[in-house]
Amino acid sequence: MDTWIEDGHPTSPLGWRAATHDCGIKYRNRDDLALLVSERACTAAAVFTTNLVKAAPVRYDMELMTRNPTGLRALVVNAGNANACTGSEGEVATLTMARTTEEALGLPVDTAFVMSTGTIGVPMPIAKVVTGIQAAAQKLDAAKGPAAARSIMTTDTRPKHAALRVELPSGYTITLGGMAKGAGMIHPNMATMLSVVTTDAAISREALDAALRQAVEVSFNSISIDGDTSTNDTLLVLANGAVGNAPITDLASSDGASFVAALTALCQYLAQAVVRDGEGATRFVTITVRGAVSVADARLAAMTIAKSPLVKTALYGADPNWGRVLCAMGYSGAHLDPERVVLHFGGMRVLERGLPLPFDEKAASDLLNVPEVSIEADLGLGEGEATVWTCDFSPEYVAINAEYRT
Amino acid sequence: MDTWIEDGHPTSPLGWRAATHDCGIKYRNRDDLALLVSERACTAAAVFTTNLVKAAPVRYDMELMTRNPTGLRALVVNAGNANACTGSEGEVATLTMARTTEEALGLPVDTAFVMSTGTIGVPMPIAKVVTGIQAAAQKLDAAKGPAAARSIMTTDTRPKHAALRVELPSGYTITLGGMAKGAGMIHPNMATMLSVVTTDAAISREALDAALRQAVEVSFNSISIDGDTSTNDTLLVLANGAVGNAPITDLASSDGASFVAALTALCQYLAQAVVRDGEGATRFVTITVRGAVSVADARLAAMTIAKSPLVKTALYGADPNWGRVLCAMGYSGAHLDPERVVLHFGGMRVLERGLPLPFDEKAASDLLNVPEVSIEADLGLGEGEATVWTCDFSPEYVAINAEYRT
Repeated sequence: MDTWIEDGHPTSPLGWRAATHDCGIKYRNRDDLALLVSERACTAAAVFTTNLVKAAPVRYDMELMTRNPTGLRALVVNAGNANACTGSEGEVATLTMARTTEEALGLPVDTAFVMSTGTIGVPMPIAKVVTGIQAAAQKLDAAKGPAAARSIMTTDTRPKHAALRVELPSGYTITLGGMAKGAGMIHPNMATMLSVVTTDAAISREALDAALRQAVEVSFNSISIDGDTSTNDTLLVLANGAVGNAPITDLASSDGASFVAALTALCQYLAQAVVRDGEGATRFVTITVRGAVSVADARLAAMTIAKSPLVKTALYGADPNWGRVLCAMGYSGAHLDPERVVLHFGGMRVLERGLPLPFDEKAASDLLNVPEVSIEADLGLGEGEATVWTCDFSPEYVAINAEYRT
Repeated sequence: MDTWIEDGHPTSPLGWRAATHDCGIKYRNRDDLALLVSERACTAAAVFTTNLVKAAPVRYDMELMTRNPTGLRALVVNAGNANACTGSEGEVATLTMARTTEEALGLPVDTAFVMSTGTIGVPMPIAKVVTGIQAAAQKLDAAKGPAAARSIMTTDTRPKHAALRVELPSGYTITLGGMAKGAGMIHPNMATMLSVVTTDAAISREALDAALRQAVEVSFNSISIDGDTSTNDTLLVLANGAVGNAPITDLASSDGASFVAALTALCQYLAQAVVRDGEGATRFVTITVRGAVSVADARLAAMTIAKSPLVKTALYGADPNWGRVLCAMGYSGAHLDPERVVLHFGGMRVLERGLPLPFDEKAASDLLNVPEVSIEADLGLGEGEATVWTCDFSPEYVAINAEYRT
């Protein structure tokens, strides 16, 4: 039985402490640096942005994951500067953040993972960050998970964190905690979706890597805010084994299956929290496509709907615009026979076998004029099903994204 | 030497007449139907939407082009109803439009091409359209090209038409005329980009088809308004040979090369006119990517920039946001080495070898705060180059697209 911990956070699992500090990187009077530290060496798995333009910390972490994937002890994250498009100076800054963290915590080299988020193309004020890391290292506390989640915010309007307690079939009770920041590449030159999941479970590197790939597919890879993939996007999972369970090595085992389910649930919660906090968003939208010839096709159709500016502006206007949804699926690349499509908006059937059904415009608009709405499409071709989450496009989105520099 | 004809239009070439009529399909007190008729049989070539959801006229025309590609005589177009998602009733309506046009003009069967644009999913008021076609057939006039361009408008704010006179190296002077309507799938449930090019040149079907494919690649396939591909998009070229030139059969011949150049110029003019009239657009944006490993890569990178909501909102805000442009190229799928990229906004260099250059924010913003702006990226990898055209995303775009039904 999985249980959500009220106000859970990344230091909810055993053996985790956090600290934050106000380095003055960009913001005034708020913490902009977080440390997350494990008392034991962690098995790690991570996924990174597929953008060819990768920030310095992403390039560093990708290599770190090949050098020491089972010995990580700490994560250092700063907000306000993405350390992207900063050349060799940026590489030195990332390396300095890693080594300073390791030294301040008395850890071996190559045990600290680095994340940065904020403005692109501005040199990292590394002296401030070094001082901040050294100060934070003196303040580690198991209750500081929520503060860490708050310190990594950029254009986010609220911190995003959660934790889940899981009774493994083998008898051990493990905890998974996490935090995330979004919310798309909202602010001009702002990069990034960052997320970290911590746990006190023991799990092999191979099993953790496979579990993460399963979980990310139906969580962070199933959300879209504006379709732009940033330079810094990173999702990290760290497992320190503090509860002493027999390490999970097989995801098909009963413990393995429990772990995957919990990791997936936590990642979905965090990914949805990022969408709910999407810039200018007024509605949280769940899009389900079923009856596709494959899961891949269902995902393709659903993500194309989620990215269509015409669908997103219609959702802002509470318009059950089946034409735009059908049209988006038509150019998605997914197999489609328009004459088999059944479409529901907010639970109301609006299209059947490719033909519009008469419906009360006012009632339909009222159904959609709420904070959480759904679009369901049945393609009538096969068994493929996928669900993705997005938000609407509001005039506020344009305003937020146009206002910089002017 | 090619010469633009002042206020040129689709009946500028020899042997073409047009007529319009107010059928009352959707709008009040304006013509909403156009006939375009050639005195001689035409060689035809056409490209259609790649959307799997195709309107009834598109499905009809695709078959017509295989049945009678060298015998077309007329085009009938209506605005106000797209005849899409209208089932078998829609197929009957399209067939009725074709047959009524042929009969009213005393033409053989399978000589009329049909286009529709307007609302999706509403039955065509076919009785009104039949009456309108019969009335229009009595009013054919060689001066009615501009009226035809006006009658096919939907959310367009102005008619789009042009004509070009070309002295072929063989001595004949040919004319190419055309009209288009846009402007993206602007209005809710509105479909469509429609365009037709007429000419009095003689050209073989194979050569015309090849010429159209070359021209469309660097014109209508190089524009983006909101990235949505509609159910009705159609581009038709009709060549009636009225000037009596020896039919062009080889595009590599001097006459052939002249024809391709003129067709390309006209298609580019019409495509750009569609973008300039994009809904809510405040800026016309020319995006050039050069130095790519291939033309295909250059197109991919340029179109990804053109479709990025973050780039488009930055352009609305006159923000030289190189970070978003670099980021869009990074996830475009094109080959890219960020450290080789050079970027210009409005002619000003802002990024060199992946690193931002210092620039005066106010001066840069002033450079972009104009109706026509450019973004140029040199990837420094090869010889591939492509140019695409788009417009910015304004709050007005969201408003236009959200306001329907509410």
